[in-house]
Amino acid sequence: MNLFHSTSFALQHDELDNRGVDWVIHYNFDDLDSAQAADEFRSLIHDLESAHLRTRVRHGYGSSLLVCVRVPRDHLGHMIHQSRIKDWLFGIAHEFPAGDEYTVADPETPAEALRSVYHAVSWHHHLGGAGIIPKHGRWKNVVAAFPLHDPSANAELLRKWSHALTLTAEDLDAIRALYGEKVAFYFAFIHCYSCFLIVPALGGILCWWYLGSYSITFAILNCFWGLVFVEYWKIREADLSLRWNVKGVGVLKVNRVEYVWDKEVRDSVTGEMIKVFPGHKQFLRQLWLIPFATLASLVLGSLIVVAFALEVFISEVYRGPGKGYLEFLPTVLFSLSLPFLSGILTRTASRLTDYENYRTQDQYELAQTAKTFVMHFITAFLPTMLTAFVYVPFGKRIVPLVDLSWMGDVVLDPARLRIDASRLQKEVIYLSAMAQVLSFGEEVVLPYVKRVLWQKWRDYNQQRTVTRRHRSLSVQSDQLLIDPPDEADFLARIRNESEADEYSVHDETLEMCVQFGYLALFGVAWPLVPLGFLINNWLELRGDFFKLSLECRRPPPIRTDSIGPSLQGLEVLTWMGTLSTAAIVYLYRDGTPEVHLWSFLLTILAAEWAYLAARFAVRTGLHKIVTHPMRHEAAKRYAVRKTFLGSFVRRANGSPKGKPRVRFQDHVSVYTSATDLPTREESVLHDEQDDAPAEARFWSGPSNETADAGVRMIKALCTSSDGSISQKKMGKDA
Amino acid sequence: MNLFHSTSFALQHDELDNRGVDWVIHYNFDDLDSAQAADEFRSLIHDLESAHLRTRVRHGYGSSLLVCVRVPRDHLGHMIHQSRIKDWLFGIAHEFPAGDEYTVADPETPAEALRSVYHAVSWHHHLGGAGIIPKHGRWKNVVAAFPLHDPSANAELLRKWSHALTLTAEDLDAIRALYGEKVAFYFAFIHCYSCFLIVPALGGILCWWYLGSYSITFAILNCFWGLVFVEYWKIREADLSLRWNVKGVGVLKVNRVEYVWDKEVRDSVTGEMIKVFPGHKQFLRQLWLIPFATLASLVLGSLIVVAFALEVFISEVYRGPGKGYLEFLPTVLFSLSLPFLSGILTRTASRLTDYENYRTQDQYELAQTAKTFVMHFITAFLPTMLTAFVYVPFGKRIVPLVDLSWMGDVVLDPARLRIDASRLQKEVIYLSAMAQVLSFGEEVVLPYVKRVLWQKWRDYNQQRTVTRRHRSLSVQSDQLLIDPPDEADFLARIRNESEADEYSVHDETLEMCVQFGYLALFGVAWPLVPLGFLINNWLELRGDFFKLSLECRRPPPIRTDSIGPSLQGLEVLTWMGTLSTAAIVYLYRDGTPEVHLWSFLLTILAAEWAYLAARFAVRTGLHKIVTHPMRHEAAKRYAVRKTFLGSFVRRANGSPKGKPRVRFQDHVSVYTSATDLPTREESVLHDEQDDAPAEARFWSGPSNETADAGVRMIKALCTSSDGSISQKKMGKDA
Repeated sequence: MNLFHSTSFALQHDELDNRGVDWVIHYNFDDLDSAQAADEFRSLIHDLESAHLRTRVRHGYGSSLLVCVRVPRDHLGHMIHQSRIKDWLFGIAHEFPAGDEYTVADPETPAEALRSVYHAVSWHHHLGGAGIIPKHGRWKNVVAAFPLHDPSANAELLRKWSHALTLTAEDLDAIRALYGEKVAFYFAFIHCYSCFLIVPALGGILCWWYLGSYSITFAILNCFWGLVFVEYWKIREADLSLRWNVKGVGVLKVNRVEYVWDKEVRDSVTGEMIKVFPGHKQFLRQLWLIPFATLASLVLGSLIVVAFALEVFISEVYRGPGKGYLEFLPTVLFSLSLPFLSGILTRTASRLTDYENYRTQDQYELAQTAKTFVMHFITAFLPTMLTAFVYVPFGKRIVPLVDLSWMGDVVLDPARLRIDASRLQKEVIYLSAMAQVLSFGEEVVLPYVKRVLWQKWRDYNQQRTVTRRHRSLSVQSDQLLIDPPDEADFLARIRNESEADEYSVHDETLEMCVQFGYLALFGVAWPLVPLGFLINNWLELRGDFFKLSLECRRPPPIRTDSIGPSLQGLEVLTWMGTLSTAAIVYLYRDGTPEVHLWSFLLTILAAEWAYLAARFAVRTGLHKIVTHPMRHEAAKRYAVRKTFLGSFVRRANGSPKGKPRVRFQDHVSVYTSATDLPTREESVLHDEQDDAPAEARFWSGPSNETADAGVRMIKALCTSSDGSISQKKMGKDA
Repeated sequence: MNLFHSTSFALQHDELDNRGVDWVIHYNFDDLDSAQAADEFRSLIHDLESAHLRTRVRHGYGSSLLVCVRVPRDHLGHMIHQSRIKDWLFGIAHEFPAGDEYTVADPETPAEALRSVYHAVSWHHHLGGAGIIPKHGRWKNVVAAFPLHDPSANAELLRKWSHALTLTAEDLDAIRALYGEKVAFYFAFIHCYSCFLIVPALGGILCWWYLGSYSITFAILNCFWGLVFVEYWKIREADLSLRWNVKGVGVLKVNRVEYVWDKEVRDSVTGEMIKVFPGHKQFLRQLWLIPFATLASLVLGSLIVVAFALEVFISEVYRGPGKGYLEFLPTVLFSLSLPFLSGILTRTASRLTDYENYRTQDQYELAQTAKTFVMHFITAFLPTMLTAFVYVPFGKRIVPLVDLSWMGDVVLDPARLRIDASRLQKEVIYLSAMAQVLSFGEEVVLPYVKRVLWQKWRDYNQQRTVTRRHRSLSVQSDQLLIDPPDEADFLARIRNESEADEYSVHDETLEMCVQFGYLALFGVAWPLVPLGFLINNWLELRGDFFKLSLECRRPPPIRTDSIGPSLQGLEVLTWMGTLSTAAIVYLYRDGTPEVHLWSFLLTILAAEWAYLAARFAVRTGLHKIVTHPMRHEAAKRYAVRKTFLGSFVRRANGSPKGKPRVRFQDHVSVYTSATDLPTREESVLHDEQDDAPAEARFWSGPSNETADAGVRMIKALCTSSDGSISQKKMGKDA
């Protein structure tokens, strides 16, 4: 883990201080002339300052400026308090934030403070913000707006994790404190998933050693494990959302700028105006997802099928000239056309999501991510599925059907056709070992190397420019562009951060879901798959944090209460995984596959029923066993209310004791409307004194009389029981 | 609807008045001698009076006494207020019930008042009740404890419903006001279900006319309808539980007397002692359900199979002597052994439920009901399933396999075997028409007739006893047992109610679930089934209320937030219904069934996948479209909090304005524990004045300077851009 150490400790002490800068706005005027840029910049600063923000400007790389924004502490504390009041009003928090309308609150975490800064910069004017949304509308030249990293906290966390085997609850809280809940949920997810991987990893080693591949034992273990993991994660997610006070936080989010509403309605209960776009309309629009998914499946599916068929054909059937070169053809074709096709599909998906008209940015992103997931799942899983369920079992029958007469006298020999039955296993091994290493390198190491080199080159270039500038320009503008020596390191860091990539939590989550999918769908083909994934994830978790803290801009601390649509993806994958595992075991267990359609279908059907039954049992069982999150929430609410009740009763204790304050009506109308049951009115009784005569008579007499009266009756009844009613026990007492 | 009219209006005015009696305890000393009975009765009255209850005693039928209980209004109002406080503490209600510890509250509904009376009578002494639980422990001679009916309200409701086509929300509120939420949920369910039945009833008429039986159109309509109904009911249930303020009411319930806990734990948040029985232990005990369900299926299944086989054999194969008599044999055998077997199974189920050790009576009853459901479903559906999936498709192959040689020379002709393919349809028609009429008669009309006759006979008998008593007994005890003339009618009514049956909501709900099951599983065989059920349910709804209000004791008003385990039963039935419908359509569509196993399995698999996809779509869609219950709850909570905030701010407004009351720390530790990050301590900044030098310098200078500084930089950068960084737009402004 020296990589992490060396980087974090190379930082100078001076670099560790953010100089009170809350937010940085990166303004690029490459495409504007100087007068236009000056106007636009003035109005940018005007908007910021009219939102009570302090600003400082420094130049960035190239034709760009960096505006450092600071929210005055009183204003920030006030915003934090307002935000807490809002949380409480909407039922996200249970504890009432004490204070009045002038209270200045202390942030609990850096993320809480930064969230209010984020609101101050990005919210619309009428909500009290500066309305600066990068790359949007008026501010298309604002290329980024981001908070600065906290290098010392990042270094501390990286150092701690490189020593520790596993993350603690406090580590997750620390990520939440630095980067907000959305990022923290991803790390909680990958951590929980990696811990769960230990079970199939160990089981996999045993099964691999004693039973080999395609064993039923490992198949059952793997499917059941996936099911338990997904159901447990749901509970864990709810637990974390309560721990971090973000449960149901979606309702708080402000409307998107692009949101179009049908009508404004006054809520009958709260009296607030709500901008309404009817749910059924949105649902009807969402139904367009079906043709979209069909289209995406067809386009991507046919691309994959063609590439696959070509590859098989060239490598196993074709014996003609240029085989050595032609073998690369399918891969090249596939790699060239995939970005083009998925680009078109992504644009279609965006347009569809726009059309679906979501109220908040969160909902919008979730809908868009859901569509991306579908496309990713197709490209990720379809090739291996073709190998598993088409090529190996049916290859012998399908390949000869292709009409090859047009190839004329090319040396082709279908008789020598040899279907490679181990191809599935090879692919799975590649996916679980090589592909993971490669993707880690591609994701973490390569960008790091690239970035270091690029920075070096740019610094060298900049140096040359400055030197040249000394000769060609006026002294005044030159001095303006030279950093003061005590700020130089700090400004270098801001500039680097301003050029860094955005960190996409969705992509990271998606990567983990795809990994889970490989394991659930094809893990049974090679029981060491979970071991490979476990090792990879140990690195991945730390690599992701390395990337987040050193290679990417700090993301705004966004609140959320789950990992989003991935959860549904995981559920679908456990289901598909069960069917796929059953099918693979059926087809491959006894060497060469020999398919009887009816027994194959019966296997699938049995697997599906077992899955449904197991899911019911696991869900019920886990909810019985892991009860503490829900109970904890209830207990918290109870404690808050109990405290309130205590203070309330103490305050009210001056009132006269023992006297009823609310009058008691003996009869209450069953219907609340006054028109019903008019006859009841007359019989309404108000108090003991007003009892109707019959009632008064019934209840008159001393109150201790009942026992005696009853005993007298018992005797009388026992005496009279020689009559006809009861023949038993008679005479004993008479 | 004359039946309802005549009964309700035959009541005398005097009979309509309950004379302030809240609760009646029916004490039977048939098995005791007079001294024992007197002792026990004295302690009963003592317990009641020590719980602040007023009592009066009258004699009942036979050797029994009726203790009339009245809770003093102040005490009752206080209990109601305490109960509301508890609701609020546990988060069931959002509005804080104003008042102090001496407040006497007015009940909103009769049921609310009765619930507190119920608690006063049945709760354990340490909770402030009298601890009287009928037929349990010390009080095994207390045969019943019940509230009195409100005859005028009942009559009003019956009259209203006999005119109206459908129930309104106010009608359901009225049932809730009279009988509590548990009963009201049943009526809401049957009403919602009947309204939904209109769609398949109309569709069924059209399909029957144009397409006949076994049409794919009706199959899809029927399955999809079932799915939509179940998903809609879930939302409706949540809506009602919010409307009636009972959402999550289960946590409030007191411990069962039989509950055994492992340890007492102090809750870390609330500080209350909780009696804990670990969830995983309970879950492990619940797993015994699997062998139980297997056993029940085997026992009941083999009974049904034997009876079925015998019946088929006798009616269609056997040609020997005595066929006329023998045909009744299977039915007789089945009817004789079913109660015996299901008695044993029910006792086993009870013992299992006892062993599972539930904390509250509710949970206990639900667990027991769930087991009863399983047994009922087997006896209800298995015979028709045997017809549909074994007898008709495979009868020709199975029957000849039976070795009939032992029958010797009995005239038996397997060659003449004729499988009756329309048998399924006949059974379904019988179930949807005849069986419903019969069960209505058996359930409502027969008990009514029986009860009227029994009462007449008993009155006559009683009369004779009284006459005889005049001759044989002392005048004193005689006068004691003669009702005062102005109470005679009232006491006659109490006595009748004390002898009436208990009303079982679970049984009624189960009946509806079984009906839904017939429709989902076999409806496709005869599209007029839903029409039959619709007509039946119109009557059933009114008949059930008739039975509840005139033939049964008034049930204690128990709170609940759903129809219980029936919901899961309904979900399983929609799933089984889809598979069964697909199978029936496949087997019966083209006349004589001709089975290809693989295409049959493929049909089932396709139906199952279609079901899973449709369920996902319906669930998502309905939650999008029917959003108002959840939004309503949120709005209610918001309004309550807004009001509170308003009053709080007004109260606090005396404090000095504009001054921060909470100090602001610029840096917040990421880790909450003090041991981490010690280096951060020194850099904690307290206010603008304390800024570190570098930070102070960075932010110094007039605040309106940024725009000018930036514009200067823009110009400088544009001037210097003839250097190497940006070649665009150069010179335009220089």
